Amino acid sequence: MAQQIYKGNLLSSLSYDELKIIENGYIVVKDGIISDVYEKLPAEYNNEKITDYGDRLIIPAFSDLHMHAPQFAQRGIGMDRLLMDWLNDYTFPQEANFKDLAYASKIYARLIREFLRHGSFHLSLFTTIHYEACDLLFKMLEDSGLYAYTGLVNMDMNSPDYYVDDTNVSLEKTERFIVEHQYSQRVRPILTPRFAPTCSAKLMKGLGELALKYDLGVQTHLVESKAEAAWAKELYPDCASDGEIYEKYGLLQGSGPKIFAHVIFPTPTEERILKQYDGYAVHCPDATSNIIAGIMPLSKLHDNGINITIGSDVGGGHFLAIYRQIARAAQISKMKEFYEEDYSKIELKNAFYMATAASEKIFPHSGKLEKGYRFDALVIENMLDKEYERPIADALERFCYIGDDRNIFARFIDGRLIDPDAVYEMICKK
Amino acid sequence: MAQQIYKGNLLSSLSYDELKIIENGYIVVKDGIISDVYEKLPAEYNNEKITDYGDRLIIPAFSDLHMHAPQFAQRGIGMDRLLMDWLNDYTFPQEANFKDLAYASKIYARLIREFLRHGSFHLSLFTTIHYEACDLLFKMLEDSGLYAYTGLVNMDMNSPDYYVDDTNVSLEKTERFIVEHQYSQRVRPILTPRFAPTCSAKLMKGLGELALKYDLGVQTHLVESKAEAAWAKELYPDCASDGEIYEKYGLLQGSGPKIFAHVIFPTPTEERILKQYDGYAVHCPDATSNIIAGIMPLSKLHDNGINITIGSDVGGGHFLAIYRQIARAAQISKMKEFYEEDYSKIELKNAFYMATAASEKIFPHSGKLEKGYRFDALVIENMLDKEYERPIADALERFCYIGDDRNIFARFIDGRLIDPDAVYEMICKK
Repeated sequence: MAQQIYKGNLLSSLSYDELKIIENGYIVVKDGIISDVYEKLPAEYNNEKITDYGDRLIIPAFSDLHMHAPQFAQRGIGMDRLLMDWLNDYTFPQEANFKDLAYASKIYARLIREFLRHGSFHLSLFTTIHYEACDLLFKMLEDSGLYAYTGLVNMDMNSPDYYVDDTNVSLEKTERFIVEHQYSQRVRPILTPRFAPTCSAKLMKGLGELALKYDLGVQTHLVESKAEAAWAKELYPDCASDGEIYEKYGLLQGSGPKIFAHVIFPTPTEERILKQYDGYAVHCPDATSNIIAGIMPLSKLHDNGINITIGSDVGGGHFLAIYRQIARAAQISKMKEFYEEDYSKIELKNAFYMATAASEKIFPHSGKLEKGYRFDALVIENMLDKEYERPIADALERFCYIGDDRNIFARFIDGRLIDPDAVYEMICKK
Repeated sequence: MAQQIYKGNLLSSLSYDELKIIENGYIVVKDGIISDVYEKLPAEYNNEKITDYGDRLIIPAFSDLHMHAPQFAQRGIGMDRLLMDWLNDYTFPQEANFKDLAYASKIYARLIREFLRHGSFHLSLFTTIHYEACDLLFKMLEDSGLYAYTGLVNMDMNSPDYYVDDTNVSLEKTERFIVEHQYSQRVRPILTPRFAPTCSAKLMKGLGELALKYDLGVQTHLVESKAEAAWAKELYPDCASDGEIYEKYGLLQGSGPKIFAHVIFPTPTEERILKQYDGYAVHCPDATSNIIAGIMPLSKLHDNGINITIGSDVGGGHFLAIYRQIARAAQISKMKEFYEEDYSKIELKNAFYMATAASEKIFPHSGKLEKGYRFDALVIENMLDKEYERPIADALERFCYIGDDRNIFARFIDGRLIDPDAVYEMICKK
């Protein structure tokens, strides 16, 4: 690949509160890594070829830290059901379909194409309880060039008869999956207990042992709703709250990332655990609206020093695009401010940080346009009207609110230009 | 045009609660009017040509009953401001730009193309205080084939110096606009006081006289926020509440439609007026989230016999597409149910009715696929996965949640096939 130079309007987060903007700036990429970023190109590059993206924006690619891969096939349907009807009529039957590997192959290939189209290149994905389908997704992700964590879903109780595992079977499959994939680099295994109410104490204990033995991280749902939090506590009377279950049973012992979706009703225990284990709270604004769970107190969690990221949570959420979730996070924070007197809304730049730079420790050298970072980036059309000049940050906002994949002009992973359709064809042929 | 026969999956509202679905049904259209709808095509048509849309959906076109035409140029920017900053930094300067007719012409042509692309064919539009730009929009709408009400915006106080009218000037321009366009059929003038706080009692009285003289309807914002409702009452101490201002000053005397946007904090007076004058409350779910105004108690208003319709409210709302507002109306009603104990969520079919058949009295013979109705309709791609069969209503839901204009396969107004780009070219050339 050697060296490329790109010119455009560069937007990238310095921090939760600060967007770094270089209008008509330059990025020099060497072997997929950003070697430097410039307002004016140094003389040494005077004779080099420059790819000029004009008034377009260059931004870091997005991270989607909570998404159910099999539910891609049910996005945007059953949305006016209540949670239990949605699970029983749509979600559990849908996930059970993934015992059929040919079906899994079709859906997962389409899903990967869609991640590429929308610029979500760093992922944390739930799958199903099926070893073969989970293994297939893992290989497809590796072939696609995406960066991801994924794991086989554990559930051994409080689940339908047709979609549940025996405790030992669940643990054996999980260990086999880990052993088989432990040396992969780009895609990594992660423990994936669905949530406490579908996992017995024996299962949790076994997963805790795997966390230690293989030094793994964990992803799950945490205090997603008042009912879920209360149910978890009832099932685990030895634990003070939902979060303590994962600590007590050893699931937080590994050095891998600890990724907790939703975190809508955190007690001081959840806050302590998130901080102590450097965990991530994943905000999924569309999903928690759709299933009437409430809204994450994210500005409060942030003020308390907790890492906040963003997830599409398809199929609880309907849109896979993370830029749409950035807009929704800002919008829904206003609704929380309207209803809850002591809550403050967030701004678009905060949500943009959450969707890019915030997951830097999970996916090292990604999420920013800075020296030493991988060039995992998107070139976005400048959607502002030409008649009147507006700040360039408005172009990012407009893309997040009303843009779609047609407005993503180019996609790069590791500095390579990506064609989602070509990747799809390649995966389908394997 | 003579006769056409279309085959597809027909979906149309019978009522607020009932969706009529005919899978693989037939619509016979004669001279733009639906002459009948069939589950099986009668023998008399055996030798006729049929346009077969396969597994696609045929649905009535959408109505957008609250939208600010000039704000199309600011959609999706300034969305994380608070209301007054949004008005002063974005909205008022943007609307003031429409004194420049060349600018107005560009923006309004793009807007019309976008309405056509998204299938919103029945409209009620705010403009600006500028006679020429308002007149231009009126003519463009007539040329486009869209059905619409629109009016010159009245504001003579509590407005910026650069964007306000003298009372008499506002009334004179309004009457001139009405006189000039009173015999138009497809596009109709309507009184458009911005909202009570920007209109003096003298202006309101004058508008009331015009309502009577020309038998006009009115569109405005009503009890949009607690602050707005309180401000209106303070400015009009002779009126019991916001709604009574329009009644007392005579704006409800005409036979034209009475269209009230938002209606988030209705008192018994607003409810009485809406019922007594057969008014319409327009729900704009994205907008009232963006500007932190709250959520319309729409299921309660409906239960109390009040007509509810849907509006995009661009630029307070960011998406022009009404199908997206259908999804959002369902989603946001869940948020209201979460926060307000005595409130019940709505379902997608309710919001679909609000966006189609509910405005039938404003735009006669539209909003349903029934005998005698105009064939103002959309052919929508069936976005369901082919691997597993799902009810056809799920395809409508998926389109509303995740579809976009690429998924609208064909568009008809008065039975004529519409090409948005061709209409745009035609308007621009005039």
